[in-house]
Amino acid sequence: MSEKGVTSREEDYSSWYSDIVLKTGLADYAPVRGCMVIRPYGFALWEAIQSELDRRIKTTGIGGRYHQNAYFPLLIPKSLLAREAEHIEGFAPECAVVTHGGGKPLEEPLYIRPTSETIMYTMFAKWISSWRDLPLLINQWANIVRWELRTRLFLRTLEFLWQEGHTAHATHEEAQEECLMVLNEIYRNFAENVLAVPVIAGRKSERQKFAGAVTTYTIEGLMQDCKALQMGTSHDLGQNFSKPFEVRFQDEKGELRYVWQTSWGVSTRLIGAVIMAHSDNKGLVLPPKVAPMKAVIVPIYKSGDEKEKVLTEASKLKEILKSSVDLLSAPSSIYLDDRDQYKPGFKFAEWELRGVPLRIEIGPRDIERGKVTLVRRDTGERQEIPKQNLLSNVKEILDEIQKNLFEKALCFRKEHTFRTEDYEEFKRLIENDSGFVYSPWCGGSECEDKVQEDTKATVRCIPLESEEVKGAKCIVCGKPAKFSVPFAKAY
Amino acid sequence: MSEKGVTSREEDYSSWYSDIVLKTGLADYAPVRGCMVIRPYGFALWEAIQSELDRRIKTTGIGGRYHQNAYFPLLIPKSLLAREAEHIEGFAPECAVVTHGGGKPLEEPLYIRPTSETIMYTMFAKWISSWRDLPLLINQWANIVRWELRTRLFLRTLEFLWQEGHTAHATHEEAQEECLMVLNEIYRNFAENVLAVPVIAGRKSERQKFAGAVTTYTIEGLMQDCKALQMGTSHDLGQNFSKPFEVRFQDEKGELRYVWQTSWGVSTRLIGAVIMAHSDNKGLVLPPKVAPMKAVIVPIYKSGDEKEKVLTEASKLKEILKSSVDLLSAPSSIYLDDRDQYKPGFKFAEWELRGVPLRIEIGPRDIERGKVTLVRRDTGERQEIPKQNLLSNVKEILDEIQKNLFEKALCFRKEHTFRTEDYEEFKRLIENDSGFVYSPWCGGSECEDKVQEDTKATVRCIPLESEEVKGAKCIVCGKPAKFSVPFAKAY
Repeated sequence: MSEKGVTSREEDYSSWYSDIVLKTGLADYAPVRGCMVIRPYGFALWEAIQSELDRRIKTTGIGGRYHQNAYFPLLIPKSLLAREAEHIEGFAPECAVVTHGGGKPLEEPLYIRPTSETIMYTMFAKWISSWRDLPLLINQWANIVRWELRTRLFLRTLEFLWQEGHTAHATHEEAQEECLMVLNEIYRNFAENVLAVPVIAGRKSERQKFAGAVTTYTIEGLMQDCKALQMGTSHDLGQNFSKPFEVRFQDEKGELRYVWQTSWGVSTRLIGAVIMAHSDNKGLVLPPKVAPMKAVIVPIYKSGDEKEKVLTEASKLKEILKSSVDLLSAPSSIYLDDRDQYKPGFKFAEWELRGVPLRIEIGPRDIERGKVTLVRRDTGERQEIPKQNLLSNVKEILDEIQKNLFEKALCFRKEHTFRTEDYEEFKRLIENDSGFVYSPWCGGSECEDKVQEDTKATVRCIPLESEEVKGAKCIVCGKPAKFSVPFAKAY
Repeated sequence: MSEKGVTSREEDYSSWYSDIVLKTGLADYAPVRGCMVIRPYGFALWEAIQSELDRRIKTTGIGGRYHQNAYFPLLIPKSLLAREAEHIEGFAPECAVVTHGGGKPLEEPLYIRPTSETIMYTMFAKWISSWRDLPLLINQWANIVRWELRTRLFLRTLEFLWQEGHTAHATHEEAQEECLMVLNEIYRNFAENVLAVPVIAGRKSERQKFAGAVTTYTIEGLMQDCKALQMGTSHDLGQNFSKPFEVRFQDEKGELRYVWQTSWGVSTRLIGAVIMAHSDNKGLVLPPKVAPMKAVIVPIYKSGDEKEKVLTEASKLKEILKSSVDLLSAPSSIYLDDRDQYKPGFKFAEWELRGVPLRIEIGPRDIERGKVTLVRRDTGERQEIPKQNLLSNVKEILDEIQKNLFEKALCFRKEHTFRTEDYEEFKRLIENDSGFVYSPWCGGSECEDKVQEDTKATVRCIPLESEEVKGAKCIVCGKPAKFSVPFAKAY
């Protein structure tokens, strides 16, 4: 293994993961327990995710309105957090607490936001008075702190970055519609079509729902080590917050009513999903749609004479690619690696490690023949193309890579999805880290707990596209099953 | 004064300012002392500022490299903050301190970042080893907490949003060059050409420099109440941080040397500057380059027949304007106000209040005559134009408004800039809130302190384009003056 090499996945998946994050310069451990530093390469990846999600959030909505961004305070007075009973019970134990400010002890402790329902809804109560103010559709990009004990780069850190949508509606129906629109049209669509990670969309069991929600919806991806990853959640909050926070509106008849609310979020954890869905033993593999660098041009030359000629040609290729306004338009999306102190082989390995989707090689012989060599990161496939086809071929191949990554991940999920009605086989499958195991379940929390005790697996969700259970029996208690649900160990 | 009206500037400038912020929906007071909520309209303004600044930051740099965004932790262990003596002395008294996490007291208190030098440079020490790693050019968009006692919406809040650039260089010359490039090419240029606020660029006196800096540079604007506003700072940190944080590199000869550093930032305070530089008694006035809505179309009709015809025509105008890809390209930049429950006059007042640069009126008579009426927010000027010239005229007028706002602000500054070598006159000018008063100064801190005690005015900066002092005498002590500097009361 070279200095820059990574531990193989087979040897130790967890070390492989850390190696990818650290050695590609995505992130680093910070000098604060459980926190990380997102380095420029990782942050460029986050910016790509953020900008596409932000566009989708701002161009969707309900009732003729669109979601709008806003910003609420980081610090939440204890009394506000405490107003919804389940919420404080769920979150207080994992809060960071500010007790001193300006050199003096505070009269009331301030919690660093573990999520922003309470501070936002205090303001909603002030802003909403009539049905004309509804729906109110707010989104916030912010940092969040939760005092996690066991942390892991991107997947679970004390502080993380996320977006949190918070909406208020006149009817429960509209709130439910919003909640599911976000789950399906924003989150699921984004995960599958941009991050190339297939997901199961469904609702969480009673045990696993958000503290204060009526129903929590989730998208669940399957990682290469066959563990599930919760990639985003959308909550139907009903009137659980509007009542304690007194968020009311006068309806068209003049009656005072409580609003119906939703909240929903995805975080920097998505970067962990991208890494664990696509990467390999050579390093990171990034879907072109979010890769900060779409392609790298590596000039190949020996003598000084060759160098000038090849670099001139390489610059021309770069300009041709940069002239395209769509997929390739970001300023740093095409990189010409003209560093003189490294040999081509070293550069190939480095850009493979960093997951750049496409490598473009150009040398004196290629120039003579009017050719360029393209090498795909996902398959390692090389192909020689005529120089004049560069732009169209690069676009086509990037599209193919995007599709291929999704297909591969979908195929992996199919191969690692099992169905059983037998608890012994179920336990064997889970113990062998087989992936998603669909089994009939009565819907009861006791059975869910028993599975978790026995196997560490949990009900990942009750899928929206639920399967017929036709008289099947719960795999634990043997009573009539309500659903067939995917169980798995999870991050 | 209508419900939505604002206090006049002459009556009470401070209430006028709060009215503008609150009644236009830019921001609201939060249920946490000294904090604010940035509402969608204010946040859209911040996003416009942020996106243009981000573009400028990412496309500038030094030594063949560009600034790159990254993200560092919110929480800083006390021991890290304490490593640079002046820095902790300056910042500790205004820090918010986390003493509990996960339900337990912490062994070491964590400070919420009041600025990120200490946490960043701990990482720089880890990342930098050779001259090849330099310059390191990092920028971060983040929230900051400083325990201010007297707060004011946007201008000084406990929590605020900002960008902070942090760079490391092999030589002091390069660090100085970076520091001044940021001040002039990014900050000054942005303030004048985008925010339309003329600024004086200069360096701060010893008394006023950043805790830990060798030299602090600043841009200073003049607000309508003749108070100065510090709008951005850029610090030459010398080796003051690289030594305690051991940020070292091996130079080309193999010698181990400390890096030279800079840091620089602007914040949501810029929104305060925009408000106080351009707005009037009717409400907000926004420069077109950062206005979230560039133009609003108000349809004017009476009968139901007219309504349909006018709304159809208004939608066409909107589509024509949206087809333009430059100034008008943002999704919400052109708004068609088709709300049926309000009369045109009400809408005019509302969009004037909210500072939309241009109003487009369209009624049945305009349609018949193939005309459209344009009304400028900055001058109130109305003009009728042929419909087919709409796009080009709107662009031209928006450009004119942008220029006019800058010219007006520059003219205001000229009218409120005075020069005196007589301390009695100086005191009178300051007492009357005259604006910038340039006077000769010996450069000594005692004289600076005396002026502040006598008048509350401070040396705003020692201008980069310094004026000859030809044997003039310090306005306080009478000794030979080193500089002619602008004094003013400031926010």
